[in-house]
Amino acid sequence: MKAPPDPNWEQRVRASFSRQALMRLIGAELVDCAPGRCTIAVNWKEDLGQQRGFLHGGVTAAIADTAAGFAAYSLMPANSAPLTVEFKVNFMAPGVGERFVATAAVIRSGRTLSVVECEVIAERGGGSTPVARLLATLICLENTADAPQQRARD
Amino acid sequence: MKAPPDPNWEQRVRASFSRQALMRLIGAELVDCAPGRCTIAVNWKEDLGQQRGFLHGGVTAAIADTAAGFAAYSLMPANSAPLTVEFKVNFMAPGVGERFVATAAVIRSGRTLSVVECEVIAERGGGSTPVARLLATLICLENTADAPQQRARD
Amino acid sequence: MKAPPDPNWEQRVRASFSRQALMRLIGAELVDCAPGRCTIAVNWKEDLGQQRGFLHGGVTAAIADTAAGFAAYSLMPANSAPLTVEFKVNFMAPGVGERFVATAAVIRSGRTLSVVECEVIAERGGGSTPVARLLATLICLENTADAPQQRARD
Amino acid sequence: MKAPPDPNWEQRVRASFSRQALMRLIGAELVDCAPGRCTIAVNWKEDLGQQRGFLHGGVTAAIADTAAGFAAYSLMPANSAPLTVEFKVNFMAPGVGERFVATAAVIRSGRTLSVVECEVIAERGGGSTPVARLLATLICLENTADAPQQRARD
Repeated sequence: MKAPPDPNWEQRVRASFSRQALMRLIGAELVDCAPGRCTIAVNWKEDLGQQRGFLHGGVTAAIADTAAGFAAYSLMPANSAPLTVEFKVNFMAPGVGERFVATAAVIRSGRTLSVVECEVIAERGGGSTPVARLLATLICLENTADAPQQRARD
Repeated sequence: MKAPPDPNWEQRVRASFSRQALMRLIGAELVDCAPGRCTIAVNWKEDLGQQRGFLHGGVTAAIADTAAGFAAYSLMPANSAPLTVEFKVNFMAPGVGERFVATAAVIRSGRTLSVVECEVIAERGGGSTPVARLLATLICLENTADAPQQRARD
Repeated sequence: MKAPPDPNWEQRVRASFSRQALMRLIGAELVDCAPGRCTIAVNWKEDLGQQRGFLHGGVTAAIADTAAGFAAYSLMPANSAPLTVEFKVNFMAPGVGERFVATAAVIRSGRTLSVVECEVIAERGGGSTPVARLLATLICLENTADAPQQRARD
Repeated sequence: MKAPPDPNWEQRVRASFSRQALMRLIGAELVDCAPGRCTIAVNWKEDLGQQRGFLHGGVTAAIADTAAGFAAYSLMPANSAPLTVEFKVNFMAPGVGERFVATAAVIRSGRTLSVVECEVIAERGGGSTPVARLLATLICLENTADAPQQRARD
């Protein structure tokens, strides 16, 4: 894996995560980041459920997509922003557990496009089970501040 | 499109939606349902944003996946439950708007598997823009109550 | 849908299709092209089968991906080339028929990225059945000749 | 990974591969199979190219989908057949090389549905480059002969 072109990559990733209001709403935390990698976790609470009381697939997708985005962002240059082009997620088991952990790893980091995979596991009673696998494409927007004043349409 | 095998399909869909805690958390509403179709919408609020103040892709995915699930569920027999096998979502424009509307339509309804597509649009200043397209596979779990007591692992 | 920026788009699409050796190998033909749209068809022959004598999913994917590529290419500027970033294909029915027709339509045409959907139908005994649905992302490579001398790595 | 329920899994996989006419047409070979794993390779030839002389993405997808199918099939019971429900493929580099190798591994093997990932690499001048990543869902059709007489519609 290539080295991050921006020596401040970690500070930039953490600042960006802290601005993600949705992550606060669902109670997600940035557990770990490294060049080309990112781990995000969320504890189970009733608010995050679907109709049968499992973790809603939208939450699974949200933490996996976010982990993928920051994994890619860690390898992007300063003064750029990551944007998810698309992702696919396969659900492998119902989202039952006390905590859900999404771990993403970049498998291709190009100048424009990155490909990232992410596994989500459920932790339950001391064990863990894979619940989802995501495969995503992200684009690097150059000369774009990764910050809220940028609400104008691209 | 085939007719719903369960005459109570609409009541069942609405009851199931009302049990989705995540939809309450993000403020989503079931706008419309018809056999093989479902529309879910959410109004913009800061809580649903990503780092740049756009709608978080996880919310886009959550309402699209949910609309897809209920579109499929409307055509499933009584005493069954829908489960998302996988979905892919392409993001076509940043999530900027006052309201986001996901409209899903079943394109294949088999005994076991359904294929559903969903478009998400952003409403803004009287106009609308497509922001995402989703293509999903769902499985029909027979003899399964679509209710919270079912937290045992399948 | 925007107008093609290159007035010679059709000639360019047809020339590019004629250089696709794989399409010749499987016997595919370019049935129709229009701005943002493309239709490719292939007649059934034993050579294209999988183990049960249905059309191999790889052939279904190949004609759908190719139709998607040329639909996008029709809207790209002169002196550019299309490259598939990713696609997902859902198989909706076994590939049984005398002829298979893939019809693609661009649903987003950006300067860099295009999103295209494609439906594949099987024609059989005068009727037709949807067999697959594809959703693809393509990138426009600018200042790139869409021609064989370009085998150097990007 | 669970053990194959059918002791004759390898013979069954190899017999099924040998009936895939498309694999013969493109010159693909079954390089290796193991429980939950399968490797398929194809040598470059002009017939398999797209318009710029790279390996056509349809061939990349065909060998990856086939490897995924047999990886899943190795873990299915006797008297069953695998059917691809859907796959997504990300293209990570142009298909330039002397030989292309698709290696698939099952990441979820359920009674009905399997999830399989596959990497395709290009071998060129003694080195190798990842060119594609596939993530697929397959369904196990029980009481279905994996043989050509089965051309009736499911």
